Amino acid sequence: MGENILKAKALPNQKERTALKPNNMTSNGDSNFTNRDAFRQAVVNTLERRLFYVPSFKIYGGVAGLYDYGPPGCAVKANVLAFWRQHFVLEENMLEVDCPCVTPEIVLKASGHVDKFTDLMVKGGKTGTCYRADHLLKDFCKDKLEKKDVNITADKAAELKHVLAVLDDLTAEELGEKIKEYAIVAPESKNPLSDPYPFNLMFQTSIGLPGLSPGFMRPETAQGIFVNFKDLYYYNGNKLPFAAAQIGQAFRNEISPRQGLLRVREFTLAEIEHFVDPDDKSHPKFPEVSNLEFLMFPREKQVSGQPAERTCLGEAVSKGIVNNETLGYFIGRVYLFLTYLGIDKDRLCFRQHLANEMAHYAADCWDAEIECSYGWIECVGIADRSAYDLRAHTDKSGVPLVAHEKFAEPTEVEKLVITPVKKEVGLAFKGDQRMVCEALEVMSEKEAMEMKADLESKGEWSSIKTGDEQLNVFRFPPLVAPIKCTVFPLVQNQEYEEVAKSIAHMLTAAGISYKIDITGTSIGKRYARTDELGVPFAVTVDSTSSVTIRERDSKVQIRVNVEEVASAVKEVTEGQCTWNDMLLKYNAPPVPDDE
Amino acid sequence: MGENILKAKALPNQKERTALKPNNMTSNGDSNFTNRDAFRQAVVNTLERRLFYVPSFKIYGGVAGLYDYGPPGCAVKANVLAFWRQHFVLEENMLEVDCPCVTPEIVLKASGHVDKFTDLMVKGGKTGTCYRADHLLKDFCKDKLEKKDVNITADKAAELKHVLAVLDDLTAEELGEKIKEYAIVAPESKNPLSDPYPFNLMFQTSIGLPGLSPGFMRPETAQGIFVNFKDLYYYNGNKLPFAAAQIGQAFRNEISPRQGLLRVREFTLAEIEHFVDPDDKSHPKFPEVSNLEFLMFPREKQVSGQPAERTCLGEAVSKGIVNNETLGYFIGRVYLFLTYLGIDKDRLCFRQHLANEMAHYAADCWDAEIECSYGWIECVGIADRSAYDLRAHTDKSGVPLVAHEKFAEPTEVEKLVITPVKKEVGLAFKGDQRMVCEALEVMSEKEAMEMKADLESKGEWSSIKTGDEQLNVFRFPPLVAPIKCTVFPLVQNQEYEEVAKSIAHMLTAAGISYKIDITGTSIGKRYARTDELGVPFAVTVDSTSSVTIRERDSKVQIRVNVEEVASAVKEVTEGQCTWNDMLLKYNAPPVPDDE
Repeated sequence: MGENILKAKALPNQKERTALKPNNMTSNGDSNFTNRDAFRQAVVNTLERRLFYVPSFKIYGGVAGLYDYGPPGCAVKANVLAFWRQHFVLEENMLEVDCPCVTPEIVLKASGHVDKFTDLMVKGGKTGTCYRADHLLKDFCKDKLEKKDVNITADKAAELKHVLAVLDDLTAEELGEKIKEYAIVAPESKNPLSDPYPFNLMFQTSIGLPGLSPGFMRPETAQGIFVNFKDLYYYNGNKLPFAAAQIGQAFRNEISPRQGLLRVREFTLAEIEHFVDPDDKSHPKFPEVSNLEFLMFPREKQVSGQPAERTCLGEAVSKGIVNNETLGYFIGRVYLFLTYLGIDKDRLCFRQHLANEMAHYAADCWDAEIECSYGWIECVGIADRSAYDLRAHTDKSGVPLVAHEKFAEPTEVEKLVITPVKKEVGLAFKGDQRMVCEALEVMSEKEAMEMKADLESKGEWSSIKTGDEQLNVFRFPPLVAPIKCTVFPLVQNQEYEEVAKSIAHMLTAAGISYKIDITGTSIGKRYARTDELGVPFAVTVDSTSSVTIRERDSKVQIRVNVEEVASAVKEVTEGQCTWNDMLLKYNAPPVPDDE
Repeated sequence: MGENILKAKALPNQKERTALKPNNMTSNGDSNFTNRDAFRQAVVNTLERRLFYVPSFKIYGGVAGLYDYGPPGCAVKANVLAFWRQHFVLEENMLEVDCPCVTPEIVLKASGHVDKFTDLMVKGGKTGTCYRADHLLKDFCKDKLEKKDVNITADKAAELKHVLAVLDDLTAEELGEKIKEYAIVAPESKNPLSDPYPFNLMFQTSIGLPGLSPGFMRPETAQGIFVNFKDLYYYNGNKLPFAAAQIGQAFRNEISPRQGLLRVREFTLAEIEHFVDPDDKSHPKFPEVSNLEFLMFPREKQVSGQPAERTCLGEAVSKGIVNNETLGYFIGRVYLFLTYLGIDKDRLCFRQHLANEMAHYAADCWDAEIECSYGWIECVGIADRSAYDLRAHTDKSGVPLVAHEKFAEPTEVEKLVITPVKKEVGLAFKGDQRMVCEALEVMSEKEAMEMKADLESKGEWSSIKTGDEQLNVFRFPPLVAPIKCTVFPLVQNQEYEEVAKSIAHMLTAAGISYKIDITGTSIGKRYARTDELGVPFAVTVDSTSSVTIRERDSKVQIRVNVEEVASAVKEVTEGQCTWNDMLLKYNAPPVPDDE
């Protein structure tokens, strides 16, 4: 089992690679601007003046790296997040979670953040200001190169360029040596600098009484998904693959925030963890994206100095440039997401990580980079991280976060099937026939055997488990209900399954959350399962032209044409009409008020 | 000027007032449950088993007061927040903001949180465990009363009941005295207890390098609105009243989190600050809610021991029970919000704060309380806080957060009006006539005078301000655009204004954000204003039956019947059709691909 990770984040270490850009900003209609800085300044001015965003706590002088979104910025953010939910979560039936930002130390110790989520700092003099070691070295090299210092030989220039290229890969020792070699000092005080030392980028806090339970503000949202793996796997019926998603705040205590909204101290992350069988990373929906063509920049081209190139995604996977179909599928979906949001195709490139950029456990990693006035900036990271995180939390917590292998061969299992004889139940229970049948169908094997024994020995049976968890129904109004409807074929049959799938497709397009179940479980059992989630409508496919929609509380059904199902559920969910309106429209008797 | 505040929060100090409930849980169809605890246990079991929520970091033993929402819980939360946005933000054209959780100390010093957002603690022995002083005293009193200790006299029982009633109002000294008087000791160690001392409930952290800039995780979202007052007032055209809203995480380091999701350490708050002229707290939309009738529990009834009573909101305001129309309007809107979400009308009561519950600066305060298995719980607080917060931030920051009074009498102002002679511009500029006219109309007085001078002296004029901020257009796709359309009457005229307002009403109902402008500013100027916000569609009312919709980038217009405007904008915004589809549908020539 492994995971593929999709992240949209403000990257601490993006690289500047202006030489690699397929076009540049001034050639593209922005002819009023002679350079990127002027263009950026004009955009930033407008954005701040119209309150898209402003520096936070401005009346107190502001805090570097913290920004407020004003009304238009807030609306843009809400639109993008809503579309992200529609495009990823709803379209792929992902399991969304929402975990706290406050995180106990042990979780981030296991994930490696406590020990490794650091920047290297240097201090100017014993009590002096602190700086990021790589920033000082970078500024020094750029300064020398840009000033075209006449004292610099061609060899020296080549060396400085090399330092800039490998900057992100330097160890503390290497950085310290270069700073000594170039005699770099503190910018203001001109004091000599200390050796580089690690500074953790997480905001530290304390949970409960001081000193008892150290904690951090999460630096990413993914760990909340990993620690819930067991529950989510169970929620998914103990089956792989499945994906979990989370949208939420992340916090990074950057020492020198820069580049406007690109490197900030608090931001909203939208992350997906897709859990897949490590021995089968094929993806059933890959054909839907395999014909897409866009700029890709594989490792080999980067190393050999070739440019990025328009590539067909299907070919990139079949040639092994992209490691597997699942990774490829998400690259394609991210491409569609970004271009639908309005990102210029010519300024969007998928760049593969070089071997030294990837963690040792990762199988492959691609970044969606967008060219903006700061150069090419990573906006989405898509990585196959294997099961690294799950293993780390398994080791630390002692709770095995594993998925079980399926049987290679089908096995025979003897199973008690409860089949109410509807006619006899009808004679005995009259109008309650349906409810009694449903109650019988939802019984567990054990309960049924106990009932049988009671009936045989005592001639009667009564459930002592009133208030039983199986009988709970959440009566969410349709607006609030987490899942708006279920789609079940009445019997297992390919024609009905096709109809169910086409209805599911129409529901997705209409933005309606649903649960489809083609397992052939009894209808009664399925109702009981979904009543517990408060699902207000159940669509049962019992023909290829029309289907029934049953309302949860009244249990009344209407018959609706297949093409009208999605719009009918949408209308009654969003409040354009009530269930009674639907009854009138579809000629069923309205439900009395007191039901 | 004052503010009225609407908060939905987990209240640190809700009161138990089971005696006041108008009905109780077991009488209302939950006949399987003999008491509230059993009912709650059944609900909680189902909620946790179906992953509505689970304790956070469960594999590490969990952290008290932190919960994860699983897929169904996450969906319910998203639905409620989306409806909150629709019901409050969109319906009232509120200004939504999104500010960081990390907050520098000075902001929370000004708001009073650093000094006063505390619970009183006691320590058992010199190195012992800490407890909340009020919890120990409460547990002691309840224990004595519930055990019906035979040694307790009627007088003593009355005294203990009185202590419970005034518990929240006791000072540190009074709490300490009671603890001594009753000889209360530490529950486990039986050690004597320390004097009560304040413990701040905010999560503390440090921004940037350690020790330089102390900060806290915000305990509420409102302060982010207050510190932005100046910008928001400007954004609203320097006019009162207006409301700002924020949805986001808040953090409270509770010492003993309890009651499931009710008292937690991190939660999502949705807050509104409505800024109103203190001399005119009438509300134009109050008549829309004045006929609502629901349970209200005014101060006088509480004090005189009478029960809560169904009350007509309009009467409550006219009799002065509710302080003013604006406060009354929001009470009505909150009632509609909660009942639409499915809250039982009989378990919802608006309770007025007693004089000793309110801050000294507050004019009036009402809580929406919902009866649940924990008793009556405050879920929404609606307060007229006067201008307390703005004054506090004005004092601390030195930046005046004030609104200017309007002139009582209209004043005469001489004003240069730029009126392009369209015919002559047409002759000179042919096809560019419209763009030239628009450019002329958006000029400032100063620019126009400079142009006039240039033309007179040099016979020609060219704008040296290319890249000028007034010419910026954001080309957001309709999906992303913060505001989807504008609604302008072509000329100032009551009939057109009525049409514009009815279109605005239909847009709100369809969930489409818009900006209406009936000020009579020139069309060109209005386009320029809204282009800067990237508004993709402009609706111009030039008749009472049909109107034009102009697309931002192509500047092409179509003519649409008034009743169809909202659905047309909705379809093209949500992606059901493209602008070119609209052109075909409304018989305008499609826009070529390269535009």
